[in-house]
Amino acid sequence: MEPIILASSSPRRQDILKELGIPFQVIMPQVDETIPENMAVENVPEFLASQKVEAVMKTLPQGQIIPWILGADTLVIDQDNKAYGKPENQEEATKILKKLSGKTHKVVSSIALFNGKLNYLATRTNITLVTFKNMSNEEITWLVNTGEWHGATGAYRIQGKASMFIEKIEGSYSGVVGLPIFEIYDILNEQGYKILV
Amino acid sequence: MEPIILASSSPRRQDILKELGIPFQVIMPQVDETIPENMAVENVPEFLASQKVEAVMKTLPQGQIIPWILGADTLVIDQDNKAYGKPENQEEATKILKKLSGKTHKVVSSIALFNGKLNYLATRTNITLVTFKNMSNEEITWLVNTGEWHGATGAYRIQGKASMFIEKIEGSYSGVVGLPIFEIYDILNEQGYKILV
Repeated sequence: MEPIILASSSPRRQDILKELGIPFQVIMPQVDETIPENMAVENVPEFLASQKVEAVMKTLPQGQIIPWILGADTLVIDQDNKAYGKPENQEEATKILKKLSGKTHKVVSSIALFNGKLNYLATRTNITLVTFKNMSNEEITWLVNTGEWHGATGAYRIQGKASMFIEKIEGSYSGVVGLPIFEIYDILNEQGYKILV
Repeated sequence: MEPIILASSSPRRQDILKELGIPFQVIMPQVDETIPENMAVENVPEFLASQKVEAVMKTLPQGQIIPWILGADTLVIDQDNKAYGKPENQEEATKILKKLSGKTHKVVSSIALFNGKLNYLATRTNITLVTFKNMSNEEITWLVNTGEWHGATGAYRIQGKASMFIEKIEGSYSGVVGLPIFEIYDILNEQGYKILV
């Protein structure tokens, strides 16, 4: 298989590419995360995933052939259309989890794939619904104290202990982790990347 | 936390208990898997999960105090109400995947927990809907050749490469893996097992 440049430093995304057997190298882009003023919040992950790819392209030496660059971005959006990224401290993590408790929220996970052969940027977005049970204060405090909120969009990791409080999901588990596998396969396949080898 | 006896040799189930930080020891029961003649197929996993717990109890020395025993069983049930366990060979795996391709099937995952303090057996069942995309013969052959069907209920592992072909799930990812985490927490909590420590 051809190597891919992954424009993300997230260990979870790297684990998913490894599981799929796709060879990759990580280039962590410097991205200006300024969002266009009137952009709908659901479109932000696709915008940022594309920005990450563009940022990587700028760091590469001119004339270098770039076959494949993959960017990804994930946001948690609650029922009031409020978006959450990674909390900065315990207080913020607690606040987010209290907002998500007992409700269904959206996880919007987008990927952008640059196809160097066609000089084309393709994108896909997965939206998955995640329902938390009504968590007690004791449960939220305990979950925050596990420290799993560190670096986690929406202050929880579905692959960690938060799953004890997740009643159901509707969509893609890997999308909630941060890299939707069905969409990865679909976009690579469409762009002519040979994955079934 | 108190140690639990896990009445299953499935490495995936062990991984989930480890992830939750629950201490356990494995006792692999010998179970007569004869199903009551008129039992609805959806009730079979709960029956077999309970049988595994009973089988473990019989192997323990008389008079030994048994605090907690956890059994689990999982079945894949297609739209024609046909149930699939683990395929025996490549041909059977191919046949099952062809049946699941392009359709939504049910994964029924049951747990049975023996509470030695109350001499009580509690049970929970999770039903999750899994939708496969329409797979080509090339895709099915490739998936079978990965060997992931070995020991996998319904001939696929959602945590493996099959996820490239799974459009969506509705319910519990861990239930499809074989041990539904939300239900594990719920049943342990109900029975007074201290898990939030």
